[in-house]
Amino acid sequence: MKTVLDYLKVNQPRFLEELGEFLRFPSISAQPEHRGDLLACAKWLTQHCASIGLTAKLCPTKGNPIVLARTPARSGRRPRVLIYGHYDVQPPDPLELWHSQPFEATRRGRNLFARGSADDKGQLFAHLKAVEAYLKTGTELPCDLIFVFEGEEEVGSESLTPFLRQMRKQLACDAVVVSDGDMPAKDMPALTYGLRGTVALEVTLRGPARDLHSGIFGGSVENPATALCRLLAQMHDAKGRITIPGFYDDVRPLSALERKELRRIFGSEEKYRRMLGVPKLHGEAGYSSIERTVARPTFEINGLTSGYQGPGGKTIVPAWSRAKLTLRIVPGQKPEKVLKSTIAYLKKLCPPTVRMEITDAHGSTPYLVEPTSTHAKAALRALQAGFGKKPVLTREGGSIPIVNDFKQVLGVDTLLLGIALPDANIHSPDERLDLDCFAAGQRMSAWLWQELAR
Amino acid sequence: MKTVLDYLKVNQPRFLEELGEFLRFPSISAQPEHRGDLLACAKWLTQHCASIGLTAKLCPTKGNPIVLARTPARSGRRPRVLIYGHYDVQPPDPLELWHSQPFEATRRGRNLFARGSADDKGQLFAHLKAVEAYLKTGTELPCDLIFVFEGEEEVGSESLTPFLRQMRKQLACDAVVVSDGDMPAKDMPALTYGLRGTVALEVTLRGPARDLHSGIFGGSVENPATALCRLLAQMHDAKGRITIPGFYDDVRPLSALERKELRRIFGSEEKYRRMLGVPKLHGEAGYSSIERTVARPTFEINGLTSGYQGPGGKTIVPAWSRAKLTLRIVPGQKPEKVLKSTIAYLKKLCPPTVRMEITDAHGSTPYLVEPTSTHAKAALRALQAGFGKKPVLTREGGSIPIVNDFKQVLGVDTLLLGIALPDANIHSPDERLDLDCFAAGQRMSAWLWQELAR
Repeated sequence: MKTVLDYLKVNQPRFLEELGEFLRFPSISAQPEHRGDLLACAKWLTQHCASIGLTAKLCPTKGNPIVLARTPARSGRRPRVLIYGHYDVQPPDPLELWHSQPFEATRRGRNLFARGSADDKGQLFAHLKAVEAYLKTGTELPCDLIFVFEGEEEVGSESLTPFLRQMRKQLACDAVVVSDGDMPAKDMPALTYGLRGTVALEVTLRGPARDLHSGIFGGSVENPATALCRLLAQMHDAKGRITIPGFYDDVRPLSALERKELRRIFGSEEKYRRMLGVPKLHGEAGYSSIERTVARPTFEINGLTSGYQGPGGKTIVPAWSRAKLTLRIVPGQKPEKVLKSTIAYLKKLCPPTVRMEITDAHGSTPYLVEPTSTHAKAALRALQAGFGKKPVLTREGGSIPIVNDFKQVLGVDTLLLGIALPDANIHSPDERLDLDCFAAGQRMSAWLWQELAR
Repeated sequence: MKTVLDYLKVNQPRFLEELGEFLRFPSISAQPEHRGDLLACAKWLTQHCASIGLTAKLCPTKGNPIVLARTPARSGRRPRVLIYGHYDVQPPDPLELWHSQPFEATRRGRNLFARGSADDKGQLFAHLKAVEAYLKTGTELPCDLIFVFEGEEEVGSESLTPFLRQMRKQLACDAVVVSDGDMPAKDMPALTYGLRGTVALEVTLRGPARDLHSGIFGGSVENPATALCRLLAQMHDAKGRITIPGFYDDVRPLSALERKELRRIFGSEEKYRRMLGVPKLHGEAGYSSIERTVARPTFEINGLTSGYQGPGGKTIVPAWSRAKLTLRIVPGQKPEKVLKSTIAYLKKLCPPTVRMEITDAHGSTPYLVEPTSTHAKAALRALQAGFGKKPVLTREGGSIPIVNDFKQVLGVDTLLLGIALPDANIHSPDERLDLDCFAAGQRMSAWLWQELAR
């Protein structure tokens, strides 16, 4: 490994120049006029993969092409790992808030500023540089590697699932590695081992055939807005727990280790409260804010609609009311089962004075890699070796849809190893990549192939 | 009275021709281009008042003119009664649903079809014809009468209160009579002796400083939409009673007589339910639908707003939520007191996790003429004599703001003696005046001056 690590050390300046070239493409997938830039960027990336010794090709899709690269074919059986990344970026607007040109990578101190520097060009580049170090120094790679870089992540990854399905055999692997997120702090490299899933639905309550004059008819019919409030008020108990029968049955409890790890990464509750601007934090009793947001399920109203919403007043009993709802579900819970019990509960609570309609119901599966599994342990060792710091185990409260795609189509777990810092300004002006994290990420990647093969 | 009644009987055909002329003016106050038609209509009405023997003049206002007419000055003290009406009308749209021209009064059977025939030209005309009968037959009028006809009722009566204030001395009277509503059925002439008042307010709950990603932050803060639902769900108990402390203290209970009268006029609950299109009627336990709508207070949500309301979903914890609320209050209750206790209660219930703002708070006073008062009894006798049917005592659930103006500025009660039928299509195509009710209304008016002076 010394040869590999030395190669990485010595070549950092060149890596930054190359990354600067990669960052020069305004590969903005949300804007159709940049389609050509996406293609040019993908071509550059393909050539770059080839130049470091990978077999690389551009795969056309209905949208932007996918770059597929792999380490040279060898005989013998070793672990095969798929590394995912994306070369498309968010629009750079508002431009006036940038302190340097978004598509001219600019170094200031230990940061490289550019759109895409952290999300995700810089992160995927760390893996490429690690592999380059093996290939260029003639060091034997303990794993076979497949690289899949898409160009539509920022617009919904529509071409990725069909591509995975179509290429299923060629992409068969033992694990997926994704570096497209963040780590809690510079001294806290992290393995994100869990994600929440979702269950979404829209509930409409219909009362009178039309809006009624509240003077003439008010008092004789159930107000659908009131009925909706009464219904939704019953979804939590006094302790902030969701009242849907059996809702917590499948929830994987947090272990002592997990709670300890989450405590390590979370700062002050008061600072968090101030950052969100709420007068008081609130949630399920018995859990800290980070536990509530990453490891406990929730029931949220995303939108409420009923009656008159314009200026002034309108004295009506509205004909209907509607709530857009999402539940965040956690490892152990299944979206289909939660959706079913949620709908059954809502129907049971619905008074006979209104008619209930449920629409737009769908869900996504929560994600968990056992933090004590072989893969997770290998990742933790690689993080420790690469960053020289004790890594943390963390979870995220949101969902990353592609992770479910990998599980469903390829049947394998994903190791989420983000190397961006929380203040990397992802999707914002002055997006930046911390160069220490970039270099540590390369070392972590180099170690990862060792550790996964152990 | 025989002379007066005979005059009315003989002259019905002429009255209809005159009413036809009155109805020809498209005096649509909502449409600025009809301003000239309103003036022409007011002039015609002034001349008509003069032609039947009243002293009449056109009083300019900031809006449309008010027609002020009175019976000839006489010495001696007799009851003085102010008769209010309005010569402006609603727009006739949608025109294609009319079976005859809205501004060409058309007789079909016992109905006269035209915009304004029932609301309110035909109704005010009945009073004018009754007075004409006295004046033209030289019969002594037991009361002195003042007529006030405005041209802005359909757009908020903005000029009326300043006019009443300014003319306060000239308009001093013992009672006001208004025929601008309906009676429950052709065989049920009615005195509307009570109206509900209102208390309106807007409640906003503010949580996080901005909409939050429900995946990243959901679970750690109170959702303002959920908080609003929990708050509003507490405003009624399981029996449909409003839970604001002391809310019912001042509510005037319904007497046995009142409940009996309301039962007389109300049809089947099932028919009513079907008309409203609700699966089941709902309201305060212990009261019938009509009691709930005319004589019991209510708490209604008129509008709910929070978060994302467009197509599809958006996984956010909304930054704020809002409800537009109105309470209907009943005789005995005072808007200021109810508003105060409502706000105090909402603030008490508001959790510390959100900030509450109350805006747009205002109210109007409920109205009641004691059904056993001298004036009410006189009106009931006049209804009996004019229609030849036993009149009913009824209340309405809505508010009629001018009634409060008369009480406040002139210090007198209003007798509400509507002679339109519930299916007169007021504000709708094919508006009509039942000619039997029109004739009976004239007789009722003629008797009313007798009865009020008894």
